[in-house]
Amino acid sequence: MDTSGCIFCRIANGQIGAAKVFEDKDVVAFLDIAPVSDGHCLVVPKGHYPTLDQCPPEALARIGQVAVAVARAAIAVTGADGYNLLCNNGRAAGQVIAHAHVHVIPRRLNDGLFDKWPSYQYPAGLIEQLAGKIRQKVKDDLD
Amino acid sequence: MDTSGCIFCRIANGQIGAAKVFEDKDVVAFLDIAPVSDGHCLVVPKGHYPTLDQCPPEALARIGQVAVAVARAAIAVTGADGYNLLCNNGRAAGQVIAHAHVHVIPRRLNDGLFDKWPSYQYPAGLIEQLAGKIRQKVKDDLD
Repeated sequence: MDTSGCIFCRIANGQIGAAKVFEDKDVVAFLDIAPVSDGHCLVVPKGHYPTLDQCPPEALARIGQVAVAVARAAIAVTGADGYNLLCNNGRAAGQVIAHAHVHVIPRRLNDGLFDKWPSYQYPAGLIEQLAGKIRQKVKDDLD
Repeated sequence: MDTSGCIFCRIANGQIGAAKVFEDKDVVAFLDIAPVSDGHCLVVPKGHYPTLDQCPPEALARIGQVAVAVARAAIAVTGADGYNLLCNNGRAAGQVIAHAHVHVIPRRLNDGLFDKWPSYQYPAGLIEQLAGKIRQKVKDDLD
């Protein structure tokens, strides 16, 4: 795959600078240049996987470890009250750069971010029906 | 710790039913009864860790694996176009149940969820200053 136009590949291989907060052979983490809160970081696999579910298991595990370490650090440095870990997968989910990345977003009480949560109730029977179908596919995937 | 009032502990130990889609010794996943989209699932460590950064590394790695498997399955079953993985840590971040959980949220193009993304630019010098401080703390954490 030609990924020479991918900005996260170019940050990962050092062609473009970034305000890095962590780097090892598999993962790089840096501050988002267009943050939604001070200390907002991105944790990115160095390999070009478009979405998180395409990352190999080892990379996925490392991303998780690094994301919580970055969260702890960003909270300590900014004095924030909490944090979101958010990964948007696919354009429909708000993903803009087609190279998997986890947002680490420090939060403050009443900061007004992500305050829309339009939950609803399932019509009778649908939750059990969905659960049965999803359960079978997860089993096929993880077994 | 007395966690007998924790609804996710009670689901994890079988005291309360749920529309489960996966379960092993460490993790349970089930459909959220108040979804923001059809197929919205929660992936929960069985141990009572209030936030994700308090989970032991092995539990964290398993949560990541299960979350992407649940995402793949929920997409396949619902025909959604993408998905968010979202973990709210702390009340300031929108966490309601104080037992760590990852939301798996199937998304459709133009569904209007989470469409507020109020990004801004750092004033000169701040990004480098934050990066230096966060980098040192991540290093202390992961070394």
